[in-house]
Amino acid sequence: MDTPTVNGERLWRSLMDLARIGATPKGGVRRLTLTETDRDGRDLFARWAREAGMAVSVDAIGNMYARRAGTDPAAAPVAIGSHLDSQPSGGKFDGAYGVMAGLEAVRTLNDGGIVTRAPIDVIAWTNEEGSRFVPTMMGSGVFAGVHSLEHALEQTDVDGVSVRTALDAIGYAGTAQPKALGAYFEAHIEQGPVLEQTRTTIGVVLGALGQRWFDLTLSGQDAHAGPTPMDIRKDALLAASHVVLEVNRIATTFPDYARGTVGQMLVRPNSRNVVPGEVRMTIDLRSAKNDTLAAMVAALKAALAAIENDCRVSAELNEVVTFPPSEFAPALVDSVREAAASLGYSHRDIVSGAAHDAVYVSRVAPAAMVFVPCEGGISHNEIENAAPDDVTAGANVLLRAVLAQAQADVSAPRKNKARAACCGRTDE
Amino acid sequence: MDTPTVNGERLWRSLMDLARIGATPKGGVRRLTLTETDRDGRDLFARWAREAGMAVSVDAIGNMYARRAGTDPAAAPVAIGSHLDSQPSGGKFDGAYGVMAGLEAVRTLNDGGIVTRAPIDVIAWTNEEGSRFVPTMMGSGVFAGVHSLEHALEQTDVDGVSVRTALDAIGYAGTAQPKALGAYFEAHIEQGPVLEQTRTTIGVVLGALGQRWFDLTLSGQDAHAGPTPMDIRKDALLAASHVVLEVNRIATTFPDYARGTVGQMLVRPNSRNVVPGEVRMTIDLRSAKNDTLAAMVAALKAALAAIENDCRVSAELNEVVTFPPSEFAPALVDSVREAAASLGYSHRDIVSGAAHDAVYVSRVAPAAMVFVPCEGGISHNEIENAAPDDVTAGANVLLRAVLAQAQADVSAPRKNKARAACCGRTDE
Repeated sequence: MDTPTVNGERLWRSLMDLARIGATPKGGVRRLTLTETDRDGRDLFARWAREAGMAVSVDAIGNMYARRAGTDPAAAPVAIGSHLDSQPSGGKFDGAYGVMAGLEAVRTLNDGGIVTRAPIDVIAWTNEEGSRFVPTMMGSGVFAGVHSLEHALEQTDVDGVSVRTALDAIGYAGTAQPKALGAYFEAHIEQGPVLEQTRTTIGVVLGALGQRWFDLTLSGQDAHAGPTPMDIRKDALLAASHVVLEVNRIATTFPDYARGTVGQMLVRPNSRNVVPGEVRMTIDLRSAKNDTLAAMVAALKAALAAIENDCRVSAELNEVVTFPPSEFAPALVDSVREAAASLGYSHRDIVSGAAHDAVYVSRVAPAAMVFVPCEGGISHNEIENAAPDDVTAGANVLLRAVLAQAQADVSAPRKNKARAACCGRTDE
Repeated sequence: MDTPTVNGERLWRSLMDLARIGATPKGGVRRLTLTETDRDGRDLFARWAREAGMAVSVDAIGNMYARRAGTDPAAAPVAIGSHLDSQPSGGKFDGAYGVMAGLEAVRTLNDGGIVTRAPIDVIAWTNEEGSRFVPTMMGSGVFAGVHSLEHALEQTDVDGVSVRTALDAIGYAGTAQPKALGAYFEAHIEQGPVLEQTRTTIGVVLGALGQRWFDLTLSGQDAHAGPTPMDIRKDALLAASHVVLEVNRIATTFPDYARGTVGQMLVRPNSRNVVPGEVRMTIDLRSAKNDTLAAMVAALKAALAAIENDCRVSAELNEVVTFPPSEFAPALVDSVREAAASLGYSHRDIVSGAAHDAVYVSRVAPAAMVFVPCEGGISHNEIENAAPDDVTAGANVLLRAVLAQAQADVSAPRKNKARAACCGRTDE
């Protein structure tokens, strides 16, 4: 049986229709989790899912599961998911694309009258962004047992509203008991520049980088820039500059997609003619391998000790976030790569620099991701954009990989193809 | 004739009495120029000067000249000066010491009944600090012709009050026509750490460093710290860190008291997991020689060009302050050194990293300075402090150097020694 290809126009139209909910004047989306805007987005997804013949259930943290039944009642669901919530000034694709691509895959199966052995779940995870309630990836985190349900429900926003209260208010506190997944796929815009710059359509995501985040305070001594000779200064900014160079050196010399960033720096007293006595800065180290990440941290600490001595400053380093690297399930990654190849799309292996719901899900189920390029690598911004052809290509790869897991059941009676016709053209 | 030594107790008591005017709770002084507090300080100085037998006159920018007459009507005055205004949170010694040391020198001459051929002026310059009205060193700048009187009088504070209005309000807009000076001496706390750290009592000031101040903006590109590989980043903070190291390298390898400081740095967007796309920073280069300073600037520009290329950023460098180096009059510098040596004080040649009134005066008259140590090198701060013995030593050096220029006239009848007795013990 040939795998059908998705209806790209219908997918794009769904994305644009969904983006009207919470649309911002600059063309972005503001759909903060568990707000009325989020509810409207969830309601639209639920309506579309039901129109596609799916049964929608909601669990206690508000994760939505739209199920297309399979022929084998014992088979674990093959899931496709992502999130519908956005950053405060977010774009139309981050998260929404993964859910709509899942919906389009089901619509395409409907169009082709294809039934599968395993059920197919399209999942919208609650609060991936973490903008209103921390932690990020809350829904998938509860699903994967990373956070307890109680802990998640107790979190509050800046106005003191809890997740529990917000879920009740929008009517999305459900009672479904989520099932163990047989496989999980997530399509997402890359949120980085690699695919665009290498003119590649599909990113075959091997896993996500582990992250170790630090706060560093360097203490020297304020001194007047004029009267203080160079050799007796305790210049915290000179020390901080050495740290920036060392972080860069570490990230460019270690293997396994090593990255290192100093994103934040505060200089005190920050006066033109005063040698800075204190600098507070952040350090973000990432790598795809735990051992490499540990070696990078050790190299950072060794460099810091030398800098303390050479620059006559004292350093206080505190680790504030530790997030281990994730490796996606090799069989599913292979299946994504094969799907891209068989469809004739340019593709390359890539790692996700950021975390996604798939990272948490991968702790309890085989998981993989499909990346598509986004314009300028820009995300978490109202100008976030992606090309319709790339969006279509990613959904085609997703569909093919999902079908490989859910197994088209050619012995089963073909379903009524007209089911989803109201929402798009059929191929008949 | 032996040169007398000053009355250290009297000098210290005058400093402490003056410091009561504008005293802050933390032991400092807030005596902003041309305020009522400044007027009170000026009034006290004028009263003390008259009690010491001096004639007080005021010029159009408010500079005060307290004159002790000499025996030769044709001789140009030998002046001792500094300023009575303070920083908003200033100390008891910055400026005040120079004026009180001058007053103490005259009191000591009175005690000894010593008359001089040249008159001796003790000068309090208006608005050295520049905290309320810019530019700094306003009074000595007008005296030296660096600024026009009109320009200075038109400057306004943050409330829109002009220098002219403020001078009138406190009654210190005078009409005296300042005379050309035969020599000018200024005693000052070092405002730096060299004397204290080298356990030296007297700094023989060779001149003041030239200064060239720059604003630098480095523009790269914001990028997410996770998804962006190291080799395609345009990290403005990495570039800025290279600049800091280059400024340090230049300042530590060039001669003539070269100094280089990056005191201010602002990182954008300054977010932990975003590669910074822009950094704004300041660069302060100093040296005692103009040619060296020019070579330092050339080295900076060459380094910047390389950094732009290596880090894929663009740099915009703007010079915002240019202040040429000053060399004090060699004969007066020698006389300060000889005075320190003959008095048995430890001494060393030193350059002033900051500008002082003497720097402007040196453009129109032979000038020199005497530095004494201050605790921790700290100034422009309420905790500014100096040791009484050092304060006394500086005044003794000043007196000896002044007498060498003003020439004690042993043929003249000795003056009445009791004149200043009301203000301190006499040595009789």
